Amino acid sequence: MTTAAPHGLPELFTEDVFTRGLRRVVTRGRLLTDQASLERYAHDDAEWAPFVPPLAVVCAATTEEVAAVVRVAAEHDVRVVPRGGGTGLSGGANAVDRCLVLSLEDMRAVLRIDADERIVECEAGVVNDDLRAAVAVEGLWYPPDPASSSLSTVGGNAATNAGGICCVKYGVTGDYVLGLTVVLADGSIVRLGRRTAKGTVGYDLTSLMVGSEGTLGIITELTLKLLPLAGREERAVIGTFPSLRAAGEAVAAVSRAGILPAALELVDRTCLAAVDEWQGLGLPHDAEAMLLGKVDQVGEAGAALAEAMAGLFRAAGGTDVRTAEDPDAVERLFRARRLAYPALERLGPVLTEDVCVPRGAVPEMLSRIQAAAAEHDVVIANIAHAGDGNLHPLIIATPDDAAAESRAQAAFARIIDDCLALGGTVAGEHGVGLLKLAGAHDELGARVLEMHEAIKTALDPRRLLNPGKAFPKH
Amino acid sequence: MTTAAPHGLPELFTEDVFTRGLRRVVTRGRLLTDQASLERYAHDDAEWAPFVPPLAVVCAATTEEVAAVVRVAAEHDVRVVPRGGGTGLSGGANAVDRCLVLSLEDMRAVLRIDADERIVECEAGVVNDDLRAAVAVEGLWYPPDPASSSLSTVGGNAATNAGGICCVKYGVTGDYVLGLTVVLADGSIVRLGRRTAKGTVGYDLTSLMVGSEGTLGIITELTLKLLPLAGREERAVIGTFPSLRAAGEAVAAVSRAGILPAALELVDRTCLAAVDEWQGLGLPHDAEAMLLGKVDQVGEAGAALAEAMAGLFRAAGGTDVRTAEDPDAVERLFRARRLAYPALERLGPVLTEDVCVPRGAVPEMLSRIQAAAAEHDVVIANIAHAGDGNLHPLIIATPDDAAAESRAQAAFARIIDDCLALGGTVAGEHGVGLLKLAGAHDELGARVLEMHEAIKTALDPRRLLNPGKAFPKH
Repeated sequence: MTTAAPHGLPELFTEDVFTRGLRRVVTRGRLLTDQASLERYAHDDAEWAPFVPPLAVVCAATTEEVAAVVRVAAEHDVRVVPRGGGTGLSGGANAVDRCLVLSLEDMRAVLRIDADERIVECEAGVVNDDLRAAVAVEGLWYPPDPASSSLSTVGGNAATNAGGICCVKYGVTGDYVLGLTVVLADGSIVRLGRRTAKGTVGYDLTSLMVGSEGTLGIITELTLKLLPLAGREERAVIGTFPSLRAAGEAVAAVSRAGILPAALELVDRTCLAAVDEWQGLGLPHDAEAMLLGKVDQVGEAGAALAEAMAGLFRAAGGTDVRTAEDPDAVERLFRARRLAYPALERLGPVLTEDVCVPRGAVPEMLSRIQAAAAEHDVVIANIAHAGDGNLHPLIIATPDDAAAESRAQAAFARIIDDCLALGGTVAGEHGVGLLKLAGAHDELGARVLEMHEAIKTALDPRRLLNPGKAFPKH
Repeated sequence: MTTAAPHGLPELFTEDVFTRGLRRVVTRGRLLTDQASLERYAHDDAEWAPFVPPLAVVCAATTEEVAAVVRVAAEHDVRVVPRGGGTGLSGGANAVDRCLVLSLEDMRAVLRIDADERIVECEAGVVNDDLRAAVAVEGLWYPPDPASSSLSTVGGNAATNAGGICCVKYGVTGDYVLGLTVVLADGSIVRLGRRTAKGTVGYDLTSLMVGSEGTLGIITELTLKLLPLAGREERAVIGTFPSLRAAGEAVAAVSRAGILPAALELVDRTCLAAVDEWQGLGLPHDAEAMLLGKVDQVGEAGAALAEAMAGLFRAAGGTDVRTAEDPDAVERLFRARRLAYPALERLGPVLTEDVCVPRGAVPEMLSRIQAAAAEHDVVIANIAHAGDGNLHPLIIATPDDAAAESRAQAAFARIIDDCLALGGTVAGEHGVGLLKLAGAHDELGARVLEMHEAIKTALDPRRLLNPGKAFPKH
């Protein structure tokens, strides 16, 4: 396959010439071209998002190495697909035609924790839970807590603007990103944002990079805002409900009452059963839905809020409504929520939806999801960051059954249409990747997509960085 | 002056032809061309930022009118300088050569308050205080509180990403902007962002518009996130200090202790004297600085935090340290802070600095500001959002004294250099406008400025929208 370059003529592109170019700039052992690695790094955790094997994989060790690799890729007109922990659920890290996958997972240094300024500087490959543990030692708290926190990286979290359970009160990843080190499409390295609490110099390029899924630059380091670890006391409030709609009404009532919970999660009957069959937690089998709320105000104020939330649960038809303030008890109660996704994955491939509707529309959206399941004859389980209006209908896909797959995809499309009809967004926290391109097209409209194209062209004119992701053609 | 267009030839540009074009699309009375209006709308509140009279002023009434005006301006190659309340302190709204000033101040409808979703939709010209009052009726709170809140508009606040006193705990304007209606440089109208609590569809063009000072689009409507009004109890903690540095040490100690105050403001001796001479509030004259802190946690927890903060004030050398929880008393204590700026303006033109340094560097930055005043023989008063590290050295400029002006500008430049040397940003909350172009050049660097140019070209290729503001040439 190697094409020599006799007589000084330019070498034609071949994989070998490309990988030879990479070897010149990549530390030994960091360039992977064996079949198993190419397969392992070809896709993220999204079901049914398309992918092809990459030409090669580089697990970079430094920002300078990332920049050098991007320059080599640019020379050879090879696309670069950046990747963190590979836990994405929209195909954003899936390998595309003629691409290199650039993994940041080995860049896991926590560079500096500044307790006075309440910031941390770290590399992009630090795993979310590891960052939380590192700053906790200094009395600080990093709130963003996607369900993938034990596996996903803070760089990937930023590239997709990941959410989580605490968002209802504490916001999403982007709310904690103050500054970024980014490798651009031409291989230059820039430092965006700031280390100070506030700043209004120039365009907010930090926020532009956050959620851009590696299409405008590759995040290699982050400066993240932290909160004090102290000053919170968690109290859980849980209840079961006779219908999804009743649980949805309780969520709307909590919002209407001006209560800002630290978490407000919904788990439906299918999920409860799947968790209980797997783990035997003694969860109720007769309830259609369970709500798991949390408040974290301190002392009597917190206790009063928990009681108020419990009262609203009961008023909406909740039964077996309980509160708990012992940390172990709170943790135990939330276990059903954390285990719901892996419990369902045991039953087969799961196509994860991620619609987000106005809070007041949660009951209606839950009803429409049930209608979609019935109409298209598919099983749809529900977990939801209900307090945000962010619902994750989980469509259970039967493996190797083309008709079932087609019904599941029809239900997926219908849920997206219903979400838009209710004033929602098609991707609350998982990004567009490949799975939400059609929905994003409907949501954004032609002129806004033209703006996306113009900005992409401005920062990556040759479309080398993760092309075809994050936004559709207009 | 009117140039007729005989024989179907295109009309040459004259002001009359241009204003005739405007008259076709602007409601009667909304186009101002009289000398007094041209003077009144030629600049914002920044001292010494350059301006020229505009060709005309339009006070638009609707988004469609804004779009029509932008199209007429584009036809005639006239620049458009958007403007809210005109309270900016960096010259961002100053008229430039051959421009139309487009004021949004008459677009002041609060369109929809959604208590369930905790959002408000409003026009760009709503005055900040009016918005706060409107949503309070529904039990909701709009936190961003720039000192100009009785005059500045939420559209202008968003265009400059304005800060305020509550930022230390509750963030800046941009943290509350969920969605925007924007008129682009070609006169098209786009809707950016979302109405839901979360969303990850496409690039964060909302954040790109926030703080872009009207250079990428004209904000005409906003969807803003709100918080519940209930659930807060304000307690003030104030103390006086024998030196600016000691006050700075107290600020750093509060941050280090993990206390997240709802406000932490500094007012220095010069400001205290100016306020007291004006209003006779009985403020101390022998203290070098006063710190005004606030916590807003409820009940015993709040009382304990206030006591802890008072203890840290005393440990840093604070005297006459007091706490107050009666709302009127809290309000009275903060009056000195609110009146400091107008009290100083009575003494002469004030050149307002806006540097923001890491919290730990506040004592050192305050010392360097004193050194700059001494070296350049100018009076510099200090108010500061000290808890954010955001300092407003106020350089008192002697009117009609060229030598004094030149000394003041030298002190201004030196403070910017010192701020950058300490890892700070040259514009914490007032934006770049015209006054911070040089500082922004040093802060951002060539490659990041190239990114700015590329994005400006992508969205406004003809440089029609507020050219020359927000970022310098690279």
